[in-house]
Amino acid sequence: MEIMDSEVNSALKKLGEDDYVVGVDMGGTKILAAVIGSNGQIISRCKGMTRAERSTDEVIDRISHCISESIERANLHKTQIRGIGIGVPGVIDSETGVIIFAPNLRWSNVALKPVLENQFKIPVFVENDVNLGTLGEQALGAGRGVDNLVGIFIGTGIGGGMILNGKLFYGANQTAGEIGHVILKPDGPRCSCGNRGCLEALASRTAISRYVRKAVTQQGKKSILPELNGGDLELVRSRALAKAVERGDKVTAKAIARAQYYLGVGVATVVGIVNPQVVVLGGGLIEAMGENLVSGVYDIAADLALPNAMNGVEVVSAKLGDDAGVVGAAVLACDNLGFT
Amino acid sequence: MEIMDSEVNSALKKLGEDDYVVGVDMGGTKILAAVIGSNGQIISRCKGMTRAERSTDEVIDRISHCISESIERANLHKTQIRGIGIGVPGVIDSETGVIIFAPNLRWSNVALKPVLENQFKIPVFVENDVNLGTLGEQALGAGRGVDNLVGIFIGTGIGGGMILNGKLFYGANQTAGEIGHVILKPDGPRCSCGNRGCLEALASRTAISRYVRKAVTQQGKKSILPELNGGDLELVRSRALAKAVERGDKVTAKAIARAQYYLGVGVATVVGIVNPQVVVLGGGLIEAMGENLVSGVYDIAADLALPNAMNGVEVVSAKLGDDAGVVGAAVLACDNLGFT
Repeated sequence: MEIMDSEVNSALKKLGEDDYVVGVDMGGTKILAAVIGSNGQIISRCKGMTRAERSTDEVIDRISHCISESIERANLHKTQIRGIGIGVPGVIDSETGVIIFAPNLRWSNVALKPVLENQFKIPVFVENDVNLGTLGEQALGAGRGVDNLVGIFIGTGIGGGMILNGKLFYGANQTAGEIGHVILKPDGPRCSCGNRGCLEALASRTAISRYVRKAVTQQGKKSILPELNGGDLELVRSRALAKAVERGDKVTAKAIARAQYYLGVGVATVVGIVNPQVVVLGGGLIEAMGENLVSGVYDIAADLALPNAMNGVEVVSAKLGDDAGVVGAAVLACDNLGFT
Repeated sequence: MEIMDSEVNSALKKLGEDDYVVGVDMGGTKILAAVIGSNGQIISRCKGMTRAERSTDEVIDRISHCISESIERANLHKTQIRGIGIGVPGVIDSETGVIIFAPNLRWSNVALKPVLENQFKIPVFVENDVNLGTLGEQALGAGRGVDNLVGIFIGTGIGGGMILNGKLFYGANQTAGEIGHVILKPDGPRCSCGNRGCLEALASRTAISRYVRKAVTQQGKKSILPELNGGDLELVRSRALAKAVERGDKVTAKAIARAQYYLGVGVATVVGIVNPQVVVLGGGLIEAMGENLVSGVYDIAADLALPNAMNGVEVVSAKLGDDAGVVGAAVLACDNLGFT
């Protein structure tokens, strides 16, 4: 990735030639760590498995290992690393670096920051992973130079992050931007959160899988999706969905169109309330389905939003893919280290 | 109203003993102007009719008259007034003070600020009326000292305003906080904006009137509401609604319960996206129905919001009634005059 200096987020711009930070993106399945240098250049990467089913200590060891390994692969010594930023899928107290609650990791009240700081003797900063993905897209991806930005990431669930007036916005309980749990259809399908008709229950990969499963098993409709997904419809993969649509599978196309419609309603809702300049859509489904899905979401939102509200507002695909989280984590570290 | 100095919004606190500002709240029907002095004390008021059906020049003359009259009633001379703040029901360009679009006034592109500045030789600041109502409630009403606050005002329509990090938040097209047009029921009743199922189409006084009208005229249900509302159900008054509920009118109670439910969904949506500390509900319906309506809205929102999101979040009634707008307009003037 060629980066023009003028386009680089101001926090990353402050990284000098000999300054490095490590960005970590922790998922329920995988850990990605990367050493990032001046102008946001990714110097090295290390991937590992989370093994969330094991003990908290073991999972933290796995994070440490990925960090150390990425530093080694960059031919650096840990004394050359100025800070470490980490994205975790859960509710985080960013000040103390405690993970309050992370269902995918089965963690509650885990003091990640002090444990890693004690181990590495480097300042560590912890933040919600979707917030960091949004920050990464603002720094080097689809939202460069934009002060008011909403990120919506569609996977097995739907996560959201908001940058308002150039800074991550948290709200009273650190839950601002939880766009996946905005209720769009009060009598709709049950969501993982317990409510009905949340965006996540209507447009996530889990929701799409359920819709196709119902059509095939309960309504007897024909679909090539089970075959493309290894015989199973429990949780369909994004690529299988894209392939089924490409081959003209009607059930899958209808399921995607329905998800697209509700994503449009969700974007209209966010635009109605915070009126950002840019909405970034990310995650495997968006990557696999391409621009058609995104432009359709824009059209639906533009149709539903108030006349003025969508003027000049862009709805765009995320650009950094799996790197959004580690780039955002690097921005977090740089911001907090206060490079001048 | 007795005001403790420590509770006064910082902008109003900066008003010295000899500093006065005029706050104006312009509605589609009425104009209210007030002279406001140190600590936010209201010194005098002047009410007038808008007569929006007449020419723009005549309506502006009516505003000027209210301003002059309120200054006279305060026994002041216009040279003693430091600034004038004006709330207008429409989309405003706050920088130029141009009313871009105000449907209730039938105004588009009216340069209110320069016209009044030329006339009074005093700095004039113009802002959306609901934003100023929210600012007024934050300064002296139900949201004192709160940095993240959403105001929802229920009348013939539903307006919203947002204060984030202590400042009014506008978004890319000045339309942030338009909570009345968030879509809660995509297949719901038609809204004034052209879409279906907006909060305004489900919970405004217009929506409640339509619901009762339908029950009475189409479904033949019995209700004492027409009688309490002067024989007419075109647009029911808040007091008639309150009286009908008090007297056990089932159709009206059901209509109010439905509006309350959707207000709860709307509050859950706003809390899900911006997670403010306080949501202030205002307008005639809230004033007439009292705390029962508000606490019911809270319960519904708490039931629908994500577990953590509503922790400590308050849903409260507006406290300033018709004065919220003029107080907010005074805050706007003080903020922009940059008193030190």
